[in-house]
Amino acid sequence: MAIRTVVWGENVHEQKNKVVAGIYPKGMHTCIADALNSDPGITATTATLQEPEHGLPVARLAETDVLVWWGHAAHGDVKDQIVERVAEAVWSGMGLIVLHSGHFSKIFKRLMGAPCNLTWREAGERERLWVTSRHHPIAQGLPEHFELEQEEMYGEPFGVPDPMETVFVSWFQGGEVFRSGLTYKRGAGSVFYFRPGHETYPTYHDANVQLVIRNAVKWAYNASPRVQNVTSAPNVPVEVALEPIVERGPRLHHAGEEGFR
Amino acid sequence: MAIRTVVWGENVHEQKNKVVAGIYPKGMHTCIADALNSDPGITATTATLQEPEHGLPVARLAETDVLVWWGHAAHGDVKDQIVERVAEAVWSGMGLIVLHSGHFSKIFKRLMGAPCNLTWREAGERERLWVTSRHHPIAQGLPEHFELEQEEMYGEPFGVPDPMETVFVSWFQGGEVFRSGLTYKRGAGSVFYFRPGHETYPTYHDANVQLVIRNAVKWAYNASPRVQNVTSAPNVPVEVALEPIVERGPRLHHAGEEGFR
Amino acid sequence: MAIRTVVWGENVHEQKNKVVAGIYPKGMHTCIADALNSDPGITATTATLQEPEHGLPVARLAETDVLVWWGHAAHGDVKDQIVERVAEAVWSGMGLIVLHSGHFSKIFKRLMGAPCNLTWREAGERERLWVTSRHHPIAQGLPEHFELEQEEMYGEPFGVPDPMETVFVSWFQGGEVFRSGLTYKRGAGSVFYFRPGHETYPTYHDANVQLVIRNAVKWAYNASPRVQNVTSAPNVPVEVALEPIVERGPRLHHAGEEGFR
Amino acid sequence: MAIRTVVWGENVHEQKNKVVAGIYPKGMHTCIADALNSDPGITATTATLQEPEHGLPVARLAETDVLVWWGHAAHGDVKDQIVERVAEAVWSGMGLIVLHSGHFSKIFKRLMGAPCNLTWREAGERERLWVTSRHHPIAQGLPEHFELEQEEMYGEPFGVPDPMETVFVSWFQGGEVFRSGLTYKRGAGSVFYFRPGHETYPTYHDANVQLVIRNAVKWAYNASPRVQNVTSAPNVPVEVALEPIVERGPRLHHAGEEGFR
Repeated sequence: MAIRTVVWGENVHEQKNKVVAGIYPKGMHTCIADALNSDPGITATTATLQEPEHGLPVARLAETDVLVWWGHAAHGDVKDQIVERVAEAVWSGMGLIVLHSGHFSKIFKRLMGAPCNLTWREAGERERLWVTSRHHPIAQGLPEHFELEQEEMYGEPFGVPDPMETVFVSWFQGGEVFRSGLTYKRGAGSVFYFRPGHETYPTYHDANVQLVIRNAVKWAYNASPRVQNVTSAPNVPVEVALEPIVERGPRLHHAGEEGFR
Repeated sequence: MAIRTVVWGENVHEQKNKVVAGIYPKGMHTCIADALNSDPGITATTATLQEPEHGLPVARLAETDVLVWWGHAAHGDVKDQIVERVAEAVWSGMGLIVLHSGHFSKIFKRLMGAPCNLTWREAGERERLWVTSRHHPIAQGLPEHFELEQEEMYGEPFGVPDPMETVFVSWFQGGEVFRSGLTYKRGAGSVFYFRPGHETYPTYHDANVQLVIRNAVKWAYNASPRVQNVTSAPNVPVEVALEPIVERGPRLHHAGEEGFR
Repeated sequence: MAIRTVVWGENVHEQKNKVVAGIYPKGMHTCIADALNSDPGITATTATLQEPEHGLPVARLAETDVLVWWGHAAHGDVKDQIVERVAEAVWSGMGLIVLHSGHFSKIFKRLMGAPCNLTWREAGERERLWVTSRHHPIAQGLPEHFELEQEEMYGEPFGVPDPMETVFVSWFQGGEVFRSGLTYKRGAGSVFYFRPGHETYPTYHDANVQLVIRNAVKWAYNASPRVQNVTSAPNVPVEVALEPIVERGPRLHHAGEEGFR
Repeated sequence: MAIRTVVWGENVHEQKNKVVAGIYPKGMHTCIADALNSDPGITATTATLQEPEHGLPVARLAETDVLVWWGHAAHGDVKDQIVERVAEAVWSGMGLIVLHSGHFSKIFKRLMGAPCNLTWREAGERERLWVTSRHHPIAQGLPEHFELEQEEMYGEPFGVPDPMETVFVSWFQGGEVFRSGLTYKRGAGSVFYFRPGHETYPTYHDANVQLVIRNAVKWAYNASPRVQNVTSAPNVPVEVALEPIVERGPRLHHAGEEGFR
């Protein structure tokens, strides 16, 4: 069965800025979804900020294997309740791909537990991405490096926890470097951050960028059914302990009581 | 100079429960602080939930090298603003030691980006902690394993990200295991989670437990001055790029404009 | 296409010890291979120490997607040349599953760069494996814990580098714990260590153990073609630098010279 | 007490090449040791390839807290026995700092379990190192980036396991990037790889480079006494099991027998 993927787009620049609208007439999210749908193993649809529940109602998330996230100007408009819902979906096994300015999205900051900040410059300079993890599934089919002739610069230090794996590191014409492809696990969910994708450049039309995102969707897919009650902390009564034990000493909780949270 | 340490205690059980008050007549936080102050390299004071700003005003946190956190019944009463303040202090370089039921504290969940849940049983059973990272600074001076004759059980799966290092793993009489000592980095701050410490047992009077916490304080200490503006994302204008570049192509932001967050 | 898997068995105990021969009349390797072949996505064959080149000639390794390794009494008889060949295959993208006493195999020690030692006891005691990484692909379809009524004890500290992920932790009846399922990357190759499997017990007939190994084979499979010249360190002459630069200052090497190794 | 540090230098280029001898008249190792001795917390001496046992007899290693390693032209001349001795010292708690072309030293490859290869160019181009881990102890006192006007280029992919922490990433004028500062643990020993230091440039006279190495020595220092018998795998007889158990089922080993290795 194809991997059910939702590409979430903020969809603000495309509506307000002629340059962006010119490059992405159907929106950045649609461009990305089209690139994913070119692979028979993926079925991608889109969701946007403006839809009810930002296009991410409970029922839809439950049937989403991988979520791709692009946001920038309206991070603050994403409702906290939806952010928490997405976080729980990730912990339960949904994959998450965070793109470019999504580094400052509520969901990415929520999952990283870190500031996720960086330095930046919008000068249309050259970016060259180097594969630092040879033949990583996310880099499958890529050359050892590839270039984006015009991109926004993101520079280190990138305020994220040390990743599980560093897949890409970027070189910028103006003298900076950036860890551009980073993998994480949060609960049962795999998370990938991928740097490129400034809205005023045609980055998501680039074949290598599209290949990375397709690979990342496959890498992030968890075939297990979603974890149930992913935040629960169940009590295991003495009577059902796996090894026979006898209760000893004082205790705070009464039998059958919930723990504090 | 001694490591300036603040032991934060929720201080609720000690006020309400005779068993806890009997074991910790001056409060758990004071017991822990006393154990830290037995080391000339550490100067420990205490802070509690009930104090203004929970005893953690900006000025005090700025002069705190390491914060030790114990909470349980009143996690929800800790103000979000203080949690965010502590998180920024950690990112800036303050060390953080989270104890036992602090796994469900707002600050730990905030920094982990994960549910931090587990299974539990309050039966006074035997716990045996095994050192899994030989001669780790946090295990310095410990035997290869040590026992707590009565403890609450915490069982896997522990809902945290894979750690930087696993320092202890616990064996429980009733048949469970738990990763009891885990290290993390969040920004410039070192974070250590240490499992033992149920309020109805004399765990913080145990010499090995006290040694672990003293070691952890030293391990978590960052000698560098605190990072300034730890969440800022500065623009680097073309004019001051380290390598000469010329601006090309369209851009979204005007010169001098702040980035979106 | 099915994942081409080779199960390597030392095949010594089965020939010398009646108990082992009784449990595994066709050898432990055949029992494991049969368990793998029950999955249509895997095609498993076997190789043993006694075959020429230990059953691992260059051509066969080149067509092996995942190698499963069980050894114990004859680690020292495995030729260094074959060990190096397997290491290069792993770096190039072949998956490797190391079982039980394989912790002391030359190949595992070679890839870990660490002593890989532990404590042990052969008393037929109960082992209970806990899943510490919920819904990890290697734990897919397993319950939250499962038991092996009789197993050899392996105890911490386990002398390996901190893993990428800890998937299982074992509880032992005699009071020890062990990190029983650990993932690593070495080059393009994924490596999984799985603890159970003492030769005098019917462990590899256990349905849960078989499921773990099947899952691990799928997890370790890298769909990319093997990395070529995986240890080479190519010179990039000035003339073909991606950004135009002019050679400056003294140099040690002449044009076209190889680097030192 | 000061940290007892040995700077190991291959000492070949300095004897054969006038350029190198001109920059480092007393040898690169002496230049580095002098830089370390400028810190009252460090006592550094030197050892070279040409000395008996390469200057690293058992007794000396036993009193070495941190070893710094620079080698290039004569990696193959380092005796395997000494390499193994150093590896065991690291596992036991000795810190190890590997510099520049030491990426291909036997000891670094031994500890990494990986090819440790890279691409390279000797063109005297500009290198700019970015701190990717803010206020990491190894970066203490450094600016956010610093430059070496002439250095050899090392390019990704760097064939090492994903590190515990990435402290520096380098930008090169010719278009490459490199993870220039990486931390690892191997047993009780902390390992740091630091990229700069080509022999035909005055890199080890650079104040920032010297500061990094001083910081790294302090970071790698383990105050615990050395682990004894670091590779042993002791049997734990049933009679002394921590929890009472009764031996069951068949076993392979006789009482008191050593395990296989």
